[in-house]
Amino acid sequence: MKKPKKEVTIYDIAEKLGLATSTISRALKDHHSIGKKTTEKVKRTAEEMGFRPNIMAASLRNKKTRTIGVLIPRINRPFMASLVSGIEGALQKQGYNVIIIQSNDSYENEVEMMKVLYNNRVSGVICSVAMETQENDHFQQFLENGVPIIFVDRTPKDIACTHITIDNYAAGYEATEHLIEQGCKRIAHFSGSKFRMVYSERERGYIDALKDHGLKVDADLIIPFKTLSYEEAETITSDLLDSKNPPDGIFASNDTTAVAAIQVAKKKNVKIPQDLAVIGFNNDPISKIVDPALSTIDHPAFKMGETAAEKILNQLQTKVKSDLKEFTVLNTKLIIRESSKRK
Amino acid sequence: MKKPKKEVTIYDIAEKLGLATSTISRALKDHHSIGKKTTEKVKRTAEEMGFRPNIMAASLRNKKTRTIGVLIPRINRPFMASLVSGIEGALQKQGYNVIIIQSNDSYENEVEMMKVLYNNRVSGVICSVAMETQENDHFQQFLENGVPIIFVDRTPKDIACTHITIDNYAAGYEATEHLIEQGCKRIAHFSGSKFRMVYSERERGYIDALKDHGLKVDADLIIPFKTLSYEEAETITSDLLDSKNPPDGIFASNDTTAVAAIQVAKKKNVKIPQDLAVIGFNNDPISKIVDPALSTIDHPAFKMGETAAEKILNQLQTKVKSDLKEFTVLNTKLIIRESSKRK
Repeated sequence: MKKPKKEVTIYDIAEKLGLATSTISRALKDHHSIGKKTTEKVKRTAEEMGFRPNIMAASLRNKKTRTIGVLIPRINRPFMASLVSGIEGALQKQGYNVIIIQSNDSYENEVEMMKVLYNNRVSGVICSVAMETQENDHFQQFLENGVPIIFVDRTPKDIACTHITIDNYAAGYEATEHLIEQGCKRIAHFSGSKFRMVYSERERGYIDALKDHGLKVDADLIIPFKTLSYEEAETITSDLLDSKNPPDGIFASNDTTAVAAIQVAKKKNVKIPQDLAVIGFNNDPISKIVDPALSTIDHPAFKMGETAAEKILNQLQTKVKSDLKEFTVLNTKLIIRESSKRK
Repeated sequence: MKKPKKEVTIYDIAEKLGLATSTISRALKDHHSIGKKTTEKVKRTAEEMGFRPNIMAASLRNKKTRTIGVLIPRINRPFMASLVSGIEGALQKQGYNVIIIQSNDSYENEVEMMKVLYNNRVSGVICSVAMETQENDHFQQFLENGVPIIFVDRTPKDIACTHITIDNYAAGYEATEHLIEQGCKRIAHFSGSKFRMVYSERERGYIDALKDHGLKVDADLIIPFKTLSYEEAETITSDLLDSKNPPDGIFASNDTTAVAAIQVAKKKNVKIPQDLAVIGFNNDPISKIVDPALSTIDHPAFKMGETAAEKILNQLQTKVKSDLKEFTVLNTKLIIRESSKRK
């Protein structure tokens, strides 16, 4: 057993090298008044002694920690992993580091985690909002204090900053129209929280596609999911297929629930796509593995991450904060595979 | 456009409330000398003004930021997501927050990210090591300065701290023996980096199972993967199945590569499990989705995360650092599904 060591200070380094503390301090900051040789010696000794520069004091001066916080609902989604890869790639090139925090889709966690990021004085935040969140106060504090936030994919309403999304309405319309073109008449829709525009907009696209093609909108076929999890979709699909008037198509708001629907249908000997055509959303790797392969909407998650990183770097480098709402909308792509292809 | 605001200090709060700075400072720390009403007023005002307590100064006093850094190879693995869930669940109950950083399996990134965690003065680190890592210096600095590190799953050799693993040798032996019992005679093994014990131990189990059952160990059938990715497995499986003397079984070190092997075999009309029996590792959700469903080794990732959290809390609470090597070994479970079941 040994006791933890005392924190190493510049005084310790000064004592060890027989130099003034002001010399140590300047050498560590590459001050021009200190010779190259001394600077190198000081830095080497500091590293050997385990000295940690007081980055918080430094960041108060520079207003920078060169760390970007990424607050996302859950890390265990391929979409989120691609998003984070896009963010990291662009930020690391510019010498910024990325820390990731998950809200687990809870509003309470999200508020707490924003405090953690704020108190750690991150340079900025890239956030995709929790399923439950309706209030914006926990974001406002950042913006009021000049710490940029970029919202990606799931963005809150009525907040004046930068939002990067896809056109969820157009994607929902396209997915639904595809099922209609394959001959579906009763299309169910797996929707998410009505507080999240990604889901309400996909639903709006679904409804308008039905209307434009003269099909009835049946409220019983629009199912609001709590978490859009595999387990939730198993129960709901099972109930739908056992009902008196089952659907002949499903447009699911993510691939996870679409895959669950396919697996449940297969167990019940419901033929896909003949009896039930299914389309998902995101183009997760699993969409190619499931049998039959899943039609889906390709989500440009990596590009979304890259774009978010570029926007936040731009705000950090210009040091001028815009309090305008700015929206960037990225393109999606319909991917047709066996799960919906009847023709 | 507006300029970022100046950082709010206790002087600003003191001025606003017409109180002494010492009163503000004490109230924020719940000092007994300040009345309840004043304490509440000070805290409310501090929050309204966007005051950030200097947690770094506080942490230097307390040696605590109540944040645990989790450094993992990649977030986009179901196994890693379960591990992080286990860690978060146990730590959040005790008022600790979790920040996640990924090394993307690069040694260079891992060294850089350990610096970020060190400079941010995290209370401790839970780490699963990058595929490439051979040196331990970037971990040593933490241990020498009394910041606990717990290694999980992929652990480095020769470092005196707490390691939590599964028995990779026994699991590799069991997986291979299962394929032998199903009648396989030429079993290929998808292995990982020889620097990571998780893979070298699984390989050792594979070799001993073959030997114990009187089967030949063919070096050509032991394939060292670089990243154990889906794409890498597609190429390798294709080459294996096209070779003069193809294998009749595959034991893959993760489910991702096992699923890729199944998909490639199906395209080549190789029957699973009759012509090729396949077993993976981890029990990822995808193992149940692929057709035929994948046999695998269940990895107790959530429990591993919980155990790591408990160990680090214990070290933080007792404040005494053990410089002994400590190993905790968790149980795995063989899961037999259609991809390997011939009998």
